[in-house]
Amino acid sequence: MLDKQSALEALVHGRKPGHSLDAPFYTSAEVFDADMEAIFYRHWIYVGVEPDVPEPGDVMTVNIGKASVLIIRDDDMEIRAFHNVCRHRGARLIDEEKATVGNLVCRYHSWTYALDGRLVHAPHMGAEFDASCKGLKSVHLRSLEGLLFICLTEEPPEDFDYVAARMAPYIAPHKVRETKIAYQSDLIEMGNWKLTIENNRECYHCEANHPELTVPLFAYGFGFSPEEMDPLDLENAQRYEALRKTSHAEWENMGLPSHEIEELDSRVTGFRTERLPLDGNGESHTMDTRAACRIPLGAFSNAKLGGLSFWTQPNSWHHFLGDHIVTFSALPLDEGRTLVRTKWLVNKDAVEGVDYDIANLIEVWTATNAQDSALVQMCQQGAMNPAYEPGPYSPNTEMLVEKFIRWYISRMTEYLAK
Amino acid sequence: MLDKQSALEALVHGRKPGHSLDAPFYTSAEVFDADMEAIFYRHWIYVGVEPDVPEPGDVMTVNIGKASVLIIRDDDMEIRAFHNVCRHRGARLIDEEKATVGNLVCRYHSWTYALDGRLVHAPHMGAEFDASCKGLKSVHLRSLEGLLFICLTEEPPEDFDYVAARMAPYIAPHKVRETKIAYQSDLIEMGNWKLTIENNRECYHCEANHPELTVPLFAYGFGFSPEEMDPLDLENAQRYEALRKTSHAEWENMGLPSHEIEELDSRVTGFRTERLPLDGNGESHTMDTRAACRIPLGAFSNAKLGGLSFWTQPNSWHHFLGDHIVTFSALPLDEGRTLVRTKWLVNKDAVEGVDYDIANLIEVWTATNAQDSALVQMCQQGAMNPAYEPGPYSPNTEMLVEKFIRWYISRMTEYLAK
Amino acid sequence: MLDKQSALEALVHGRKPGHSLDAPFYTSAEVFDADMEAIFYRHWIYVGVEPDVPEPGDVMTVNIGKASVLIIRDDDMEIRAFHNVCRHRGARLIDEEKATVGNLVCRYHSWTYALDGRLVHAPHMGAEFDASCKGLKSVHLRSLEGLLFICLTEEPPEDFDYVAARMAPYIAPHKVRETKIAYQSDLIEMGNWKLTIENNRECYHCEANHPELTVPLFAYGFGFSPEEMDPLDLENAQRYEALRKTSHAEWENMGLPSHEIEELDSRVTGFRTERLPLDGNGESHTMDTRAACRIPLGAFSNAKLGGLSFWTQPNSWHHFLGDHIVTFSALPLDEGRTLVRTKWLVNKDAVEGVDYDIANLIEVWTATNAQDSALVQMCQQGAMNPAYEPGPYSPNTEMLVEKFIRWYISRMTEYLAK
Repeated sequence: MLDKQSALEALVHGRKPGHSLDAPFYTSAEVFDADMEAIFYRHWIYVGVEPDVPEPGDVMTVNIGKASVLIIRDDDMEIRAFHNVCRHRGARLIDEEKATVGNLVCRYHSWTYALDGRLVHAPHMGAEFDASCKGLKSVHLRSLEGLLFICLTEEPPEDFDYVAARMAPYIAPHKVRETKIAYQSDLIEMGNWKLTIENNRECYHCEANHPELTVPLFAYGFGFSPEEMDPLDLENAQRYEALRKTSHAEWENMGLPSHEIEELDSRVTGFRTERLPLDGNGESHTMDTRAACRIPLGAFSNAKLGGLSFWTQPNSWHHFLGDHIVTFSALPLDEGRTLVRTKWLVNKDAVEGVDYDIANLIEVWTATNAQDSALVQMCQQGAMNPAYEPGPYSPNTEMLVEKFIRWYISRMTEYLAK
Repeated sequence: MLDKQSALEALVHGRKPGHSLDAPFYTSAEVFDADMEAIFYRHWIYVGVEPDVPEPGDVMTVNIGKASVLIIRDDDMEIRAFHNVCRHRGARLIDEEKATVGNLVCRYHSWTYALDGRLVHAPHMGAEFDASCKGLKSVHLRSLEGLLFICLTEEPPEDFDYVAARMAPYIAPHKVRETKIAYQSDLIEMGNWKLTIENNRECYHCEANHPELTVPLFAYGFGFSPEEMDPLDLENAQRYEALRKTSHAEWENMGLPSHEIEELDSRVTGFRTERLPLDGNGESHTMDTRAACRIPLGAFSNAKLGGLSFWTQPNSWHHFLGDHIVTFSALPLDEGRTLVRTKWLVNKDAVEGVDYDIANLIEVWTATNAQDSALVQMCQQGAMNPAYEPGPYSPNTEMLVEKFIRWYISRMTEYLAK
Repeated sequence: MLDKQSALEALVHGRKPGHSLDAPFYTSAEVFDADMEAIFYRHWIYVGVEPDVPEPGDVMTVNIGKASVLIIRDDDMEIRAFHNVCRHRGARLIDEEKATVGNLVCRYHSWTYALDGRLVHAPHMGAEFDASCKGLKSVHLRSLEGLLFICLTEEPPEDFDYVAARMAPYIAPHKVRETKIAYQSDLIEMGNWKLTIENNRECYHCEANHPELTVPLFAYGFGFSPEEMDPLDLENAQRYEALRKTSHAEWENMGLPSHEIEELDSRVTGFRTERLPLDGNGESHTMDTRAACRIPLGAFSNAKLGGLSFWTQPNSWHHFLGDHIVTFSALPLDEGRTLVRTKWLVNKDAVEGVDYDIANLIEVWTATNAQDSALVQMCQQGAMNPAYEPGPYSPNTEMLVEKFIRWYISRMTEYLAK
């Protein structure tokens, strides 16, 4: 145990600033176990949205590492989270990702829990048995304007309140609670979760790899090296910068906060947001850059709202458009595999085939996810090579990758100091 | 090594009486290795029946953990067991589960062993080679009225003689040696072997999970909480108890020992037996509770013989009916997988399609096995959850589970003290 | 680390001469890691032939353990080897086994390397970035008359020059560089790499297992026990010995060195060679023992050239016939799996379907490889059995197995002493 700790300390303290991590951070099962312990079992993890459990008795199961958690909506419409383990013989209570129940009944010996977690029936246990000590173990859950975050530790990071207060004005107008899930995709990337997040935190790779995403998205918005650009490129970049400024002013006038907030590596619950203008018709993340859904979100009347992006450490990113929302959670499976769960949300009153077409709605991000998955796998294969060594991040295009890694290293450092 | 030992000692000594085990007992590869070493390589393991190798030269291979063992019937009809490893380059000698051979010839370089294990041919080994030291390594084997048990250690537990003497009068009338294997199923349960056995040692889960098994089987026979029962239930339970007593008297008069012997946690070769009355027509473990085979076992003339059950620690259970036998061995594959091998035996003179129908013969236990397999998997998933903690056994319905766990803990304690 | 080292030392120093290795050498993941470190990352490993990359820009990837290496032919026809890892974020550069490129462009962020490894383009890295330090890491590569060997360590064994000087006269007449690859097979054997090599180093198993190979090959050529042979066998063996002598004299007169050189365990780059007469028509490794390709290799005019065999430690064997070459490399995947890659080479001017038929060309070794694969798997299964113990090698037929093991043990001993 001490040996493992000191080996991990040496890795964490030996991190070379401005460079990718040493190979074991991506390939070692021991580092993975520490990541679970230090990061995923102790921070706010994004797992889904309120529309995942729209009705009383709706249950969603989410697995974080070896933990399995139930997200349940009760009869008073309150949403709660519990560990998915019967208190009798330890059976997993719900196996499906989604279910609807009256009570939670363990299949094994019919122990029965109410939707608030109380054990209400346990046959044959005898007179001395005290059911009141055997309710389901609860898990901390917070809803940020409909986005659900859970935290598995006893005392979760307190700065979630701060993050929620800063972010609520940005997210609220998109009215997540009044959406439905039009489509969900579960993709297993063959790489460490940190490679998934690193890949998400830069658009340096977009031009060469994402022909669909770069239709609506300006790659300029994620950094460049001015000295390397030709006059035409520079002119385009300047035009984009001007567009960003005028758009921000316009949107803020409409009551839509748009300016960047960037606290990715300066707090426990690191996050960043900004509303970005889109290319072409400027409406949505679609191949024609027009809205994918005829019924807008919330009370929007103007279609050209750009895209509000929201990133959280350690495991989520989100794009809120005028007509739909795309929301992503990365859930580590083991040191070399990560589940990327993507949900597309539209107004709950929209009718499939009438107001929106699923193929059109999901085209850009389905293609982009597949491309990113291949890139993550290439990096995982590279990190396993004994010849791999940390390489330099671009100071112009990979600043947010560096901030993710800095956040990770500082969280690990604090964990190891305990 | 010392660290592993002290970690294991802490687990074993920290077991909470009356509760399921701590998670590592079900999920850790190191505990699994210790289970193999302490339990499966040192106790009498049930592996099959004499009719598995009915004729001279018949061979059956059985794998226990990483060990592979040959069970062979020689030309004098004697049954022996040997390690399935050539003494030359270590090749596995027989790969199939069943084979018939003249001698045991290694495919690699034709080293040839007689059915008694002697090396009788080893070409090109030169004049100085002494074949007499290179016979197959033998394995202890005992037949309890046709049930085959092997023990991999040099000095097997001596109390097998006692168990055999107590059990022979119960089993002998069913004449295992005069049966044939009508059907065998190999099912891999996705759970630790101790979960498989725990599940086998209680019928608390039967009512909610085994609609087929509870047709012939009275769930009352495995315990209940009297204070929770309504008057009708109590009346039924009392009627069952009366039936059990009169049946025992009747069967013992017929020369069929029937009363319970229960030494599950009080000896090294723990076991239990009892002949139980059946529901309905009371003849067999079938959906119509009638005999599945027209030709009875042994010399039986009365079909209503109930079911003689026999359980052994650590890995078997058996039901002897008047017309057939169902016999089960649980063989651990790794910490999360267990092979459950089920054999249905009928009178060797019975003709399939004429005297018995296989679908009818196997229906109850095929369904029950599949249901148990799902339950074991639920518990394995639960035990992997960091939120799992040992839960309480019912004092009314899980006494035999507690006895299995007590036996296991005492065997591990003795092993660790060596 | 010290514990692992001392455990390994105990295994290495405890090896029983003349016997197969202790089980952990075949089954332990820790020994496998040491094998990679001590053997495969520090010796000359045979990986393919110059005709694998015939044209400028042709690339072949080869994986040795966790290392992935690019073999590239540049515009000046020079062949070089590099680690297959981008110096930026560590992505694997080429995923396919074979490709043809102008430059090596990383798919992730378009970092671009010339065929000589220099980094020639890295966008957005800023003014302070020094591309000259970020070229691809090179790997030592040598061509022995067209056979490609690589070595992953900084200072490779120096005796390769000696081996090349001794072997060049044997191999050169077969003109590997003027061949093409007619067929390649990749077979994953379910056994440790040392079992693959042990199996390759004796023909004791040929008679019982290789009906196809023993059509052209005289099993006598690989040893026997004279005292066990009957008069007819002995007469045949003597006839073979006479044939070998007259053939050697004849071939050496034609300028084809043929006598045995055997330095398998007496140097770092252990090797052995001999030209062997063939049975039947004596031309090739085919089912009718005639040439499989109508166009001979090199400038040969006589078809009856026997078979020149060449073995290297730790991972290759080769048969050079008058009409084709069969060449094998064994590449360990993990402690229980080994890739055996077989290439059949014919004169580059030969036309498939006209001058040779692939089914006929590959029949003998395709069958032989499949048989060997089954044998290796049997030994791996045996080595996992707790009852396995090292068995004796035949002093008459397994001398070269013993030499391989002696070489391995001496290389491990030297590694551990460092």
